[in-house]
Amino acid sequence: MIENKDQNKTDLTQMGEFGLIEHLTQFLKPQLESTIVGIGDDAAVLDHSGQKTVVSTDLLVEGVHFDLAYMPLKHLGYKSVIVNLSDIYAMNARATQVTVSIAVSNRFPLEALEEFYAGVAMAAKIYKVDVVGGDTTSSTKGMLISVTALGVAQEEKLCYRNGAKPNDLLVVSGDLGGAYLGYQVLNREKEVFKVNPQNQPDLDPYSYIVERQLKPEARKDIVDILEKLEVKPTAMIDISDGLSSEILHLCKQSGVGCNLFEDKIPLDPTVISTCEEFKLDSTMVALSGGEDYELLFTIAQEDYPKIKGNPNLTVVGHIAEQAEGAHLISRNNAKIPLTAQGWNSFAKA
Amino acid sequence: MIENKDQNKTDLTQMGEFGLIEHLTQFLKPQLESTIVGIGDDAAVLDHSGQKTVVSTDLLVEGVHFDLAYMPLKHLGYKSVIVNLSDIYAMNARATQVTVSIAVSNRFPLEALEEFYAGVAMAAKIYKVDVVGGDTTSSTKGMLISVTALGVAQEEKLCYRNGAKPNDLLVVSGDLGGAYLGYQVLNREKEVFKVNPQNQPDLDPYSYIVERQLKPEARKDIVDILEKLEVKPTAMIDISDGLSSEILHLCKQSGVGCNLFEDKIPLDPTVISTCEEFKLDSTMVALSGGEDYELLFTIAQEDYPKIKGNPNLTVVGHIAEQAEGAHLISRNNAKIPLTAQGWNSFAKA
Repeated sequence: MIENKDQNKTDLTQMGEFGLIEHLTQFLKPQLESTIVGIGDDAAVLDHSGQKTVVSTDLLVEGVHFDLAYMPLKHLGYKSVIVNLSDIYAMNARATQVTVSIAVSNRFPLEALEEFYAGVAMAAKIYKVDVVGGDTTSSTKGMLISVTALGVAQEEKLCYRNGAKPNDLLVVSGDLGGAYLGYQVLNREKEVFKVNPQNQPDLDPYSYIVERQLKPEARKDIVDILEKLEVKPTAMIDISDGLSSEILHLCKQSGVGCNLFEDKIPLDPTVISTCEEFKLDSTMVALSGGEDYELLFTIAQEDYPKIKGNPNLTVVGHIAEQAEGAHLISRNNAKIPLTAQGWNSFAKA
Repeated sequence: MIENKDQNKTDLTQMGEFGLIEHLTQFLKPQLESTIVGIGDDAAVLDHSGQKTVVSTDLLVEGVHFDLAYMPLKHLGYKSVIVNLSDIYAMNARATQVTVSIAVSNRFPLEALEEFYAGVAMAAKIYKVDVVGGDTTSSTKGMLISVTALGVAQEEKLCYRNGAKPNDLLVVSGDLGGAYLGYQVLNREKEVFKVNPQNQPDLDPYSYIVERQLKPEARKDIVDILEKLEVKPTAMIDISDGLSSEILHLCKQSGVGCNLFEDKIPLDPTVISTCEEFKLDSTMVALSGGEDYELLFTIAQEDYPKIKGNPNLTVVGHIAEQAEGAHLISRNNAKIPLTAQGWNSFAKA
């Protein structure tokens, strides 16, 4: 009864490009004063008078950045926006507008795009950003998403990657490794499903890490907390590729080294138990896992009392002179050079 | 000797993502005062203080929007930027920054990306915009390009699509139909090449229209000309989808009708001769062809003396009441309803 199933689906070719855009964007009305004109003209018009504008962009490709086998389209729409907002917050700026473009092959019915846009709209509502433009087009294969986010900040608030100084403290928000482990769990269930499609996976024990993978949040709240605490980070970056890789970016651009303490890396209990189950080293997962979208930043020593005891923030190490290099100080006090892949496992042995 | 041929090509997998981005963007240094920070941090930082920011974005997919069989990568890089700048100029704004993202499959060597970025850099230099961000990633198939352009304008200069009034004059820049015919010529040569790869096409007689297709220009100069002439269009749009479709957008959003005069549509002699060769109606080609990236705008009657005689601008009709509808007035004075596909050919018969 394939025909019956298809009756509920709307073929994109019936819509026409302009009808499709109008339909999908009807609920994406501007909510900010800085959005003068949103979707519907050659370009959107924004008013960020007196503040600096920040811009960030990401391109996401099906089969490379996401797998529709376990990524619901609504979550994908949400996550596509979040990953860009995270870059804006990593500048210590406030996100204001996004543009969202998608290309899909004709195997996607209208309802699939509606799901995707529902996720986009939810992220826009929760993070208080306006969707002010985009492009909807066809692809020869699969789904592609391009998101550009804009934000604003007073010049003196902006945090770059190059401001870390020796003796600054290295701080991370939240906990690490969850998104990567969530991916491992989902991937295992996908393999089980391939063998036995009747099998209903029990994801309850993994709900925290699965959510970290499927519906990550960007740390808008950290920008607010830092302002309230009157702390301006000396350098900041978001953790999209794993702690190790981001620390190395920050050290390289600041011209410094660092010591990261293994026993300080914040891990959720689910991350620890799932690492045991999968026989993975939890430190390795936190260092290399990626997609956590937490913030990594450095602060002057004198600001430590301000952040001390804040449940959202963990001091994981300190900045050193460049000549000292970037190291992980292991639980047994070994000094292991950090590499973009986590650490050099040969050096550890 | 396939091996020898490959020795000169650099495999992308050798580069690593960060090395690749650094390599490709090394010549894209900021040239504008408004670009505070370009590529290299979580986001770019821009200063458009006191002016409105305008934003536009496009997603281009290989096999849908371009064909690498006859589109050299350098031209593709150039065109990808141009099509977005055109949207900024259509707001009567000045383009300032772009972000350029690409996804490519591993069949593309580094040298291909270098060619693409050389085209991007050329467009940035000629149009005086800064490339301030982007994303370089892999795709499972083919090449995808996403460009977002930003610009600025004083609020009172901005031209929207919804300001056209009855009796306003309908004006186009340059001439129309060339890009579509250039595509027809290139497509014909591609088919010839498939049958006989030894055949060397003689594109000399078609150089104008082939260039219109492969290396279009955005009408930055029109924004300057209008300022110098002290003319502010009542409405403006760029001609990316063909004159007819753009007129209908403008009429719909302004709540007006119009009369477009067939004998006023500006056509290059090469367009006329090539239409004869391909047995195409030149009016149909101008109305539906697309990709010319000229500007379509309306001006108040009283501004006519200011633009009269300007070789860049042609009055092609006038705005009417909405109830009158949107029509083409043919050479033999027939009144034919305009449709998004050019005109309704059944109605004409």
